Amino acid sequence: MRNIKLTIEYDGSKYNGWQRLGNTENTIQFKIESVLSRMTGENIEVIASGRTDAGVHALNQVVNFKTNKILSSEYIRDYCNKYLPKDIVIKDAEEVDDRFHARYNAKSKKYLYRIWTGEIPTAFHRKYTYYIPHYLDIEAMKKASSYFIGKHDFKAFSSVKSKKKSTIREIYEINIKEEGKEIQMMFHGNGFLYNMVRIMVGTLIEVGEGKRRPEEIEEIINTKVRQNAGPTAPAQGLFLYQVYYEGLQV
Amino acid sequence: MRNIKLTIEYDGSKYNGWQRLGNTENTIQFKIESVLSRMTGENIEVIASGRTDAGVHALNQVVNFKTNKILSSEYIRDYCNKYLPKDIVIKDAEEVDDRFHARYNAKSKKYLYRIWTGEIPTAFHRKYTYYIPHYLDIEAMKKASSYFIGKHDFKAFSSVKSKKKSTIREIYEINIKEEGKEIQMMFHGNGFLYNMVRIMVGTLIEVGEGKRRPEEIEEIINTKVRQNAGPTAPAQGLFLYQVYYEGLQV
Repeated sequence: MRNIKLTIEYDGSKYNGWQRLGNTENTIQFKIESVLSRMTGENIEVIASGRTDAGVHALNQVVNFKTNKILSSEYIRDYCNKYLPKDIVIKDAEEVDDRFHARYNAKSKKYLYRIWTGEIPTAFHRKYTYYIPHYLDIEAMKKASSYFIGKHDFKAFSSVKSKKKSTIREIYEINIKEEGKEIQMMFHGNGFLYNMVRIMVGTLIEVGEGKRRPEEIEEIINTKVRQNAGPTAPAQGLFLYQVYYEGLQV
Repeated sequence: MRNIKLTIEYDGSKYNGWQRLGNTENTIQFKIESVLSRMTGENIEVIASGRTDAGVHALNQVVNFKTNKILSSEYIRDYCNKYLPKDIVIKDAEEVDDRFHARYNAKSKKYLYRIWTGEIPTAFHRKYTYYIPHYLDIEAMKKASSYFIGKHDFKAFSSVKSKKKSTIREIYEINIKEEGKEIQMMFHGNGFLYNMVRIMVGTLIEVGEGKRRPEEIEEIINTKVRQNAGPTAPAQGLFLYQVYYEGLQV
């Protein structure tokens, strides 16, 4: 069988996320599997680098799937883009080593969170940013973000219910910058717990609003209690930005 | 009475244009007049710099309206942004001279047309660009666009039905540039006929595709026959970018 890797961009606004139990039809996974199954005449299942929640977007989600059909990468890409909804785009298709697994082989990920600030909201970026009408102290947010860097137990910054799995993750870098009326926050880590980026963002926003001191981040991490962290920032500002694989920058 | 000028940004995707005869409720004008009437308790009518068609966007549409109510500019702006649909944003409100008229006093306008090119479509810009999957010869398009510059009878480049009104307009500048996968075409002129920008774009695209020589633009203008020009490019790539008033850059 051939193993095909896809790089996918999607506007998550309309979908119930990448995958969902129950009503699965309005998921991105379902849309992609439907088109691939139709293309190959096989019952295709795709494996993603990870799930994204309802309303979360992706610039470079990575998936792989197995097929017996011999089809060129361009044919796969163009067929999918012809039949997928316009808010899901296959940016690249390539045949990869049989052992490549989009989830197990992912070494690290980058997530981008976009905030729109100022007195005037935005008509064009409203579905892709979280609008905060008041001033945020960016320098305080940058200082606060430095306490996330490194290997920590991020239990306080997750909505994980299971107590069995490890909640230790390593954050390599957080880059916060202003671009006009936007604040762009880039998170790079070896993995992220459920809702982890959105809770980190919600907590950093409270620092930016002066409700918390930057140093409190360290204390919150140490308590390992979700209630001590800030709220979960809305889904629409979050983008799965990049997935990195060993020796391979996707 | 006070005369208030508004600068407005809107995502035209969902609307039947700025104004429409018949079913007027799904127009941008109707949405704005409804909110202003509610705010003032008066029956407000707004005058726009010009109409935009269904699906066309605006970054800086300018309107004015008269009211007896004394309200601060910030109050007007914030009230509107609170009650307007999220795809319509008041960027600025200011009290202006009683004689200011958003349509009659407009001296020139800029329109932006955005094209997305390449083998891979876009999930995020699909509502704000016209996607052309094949190569376009930008240099030929730039050369062709130079024939539009100056004062011409643009009858061949309009869908105007009335034969009474003048179809002479002056184009000051057309700037075509590539930004990654985007081609951005900026048109600056003293006024534009109905569908004029979209027909100019449709014709320039045919030049970019090698279907026409750049020099043909001059010939098409001279024939004054609509059928000799190219097709009307789709609405979703068009933005009313800026409206200029005497001694006043809005």
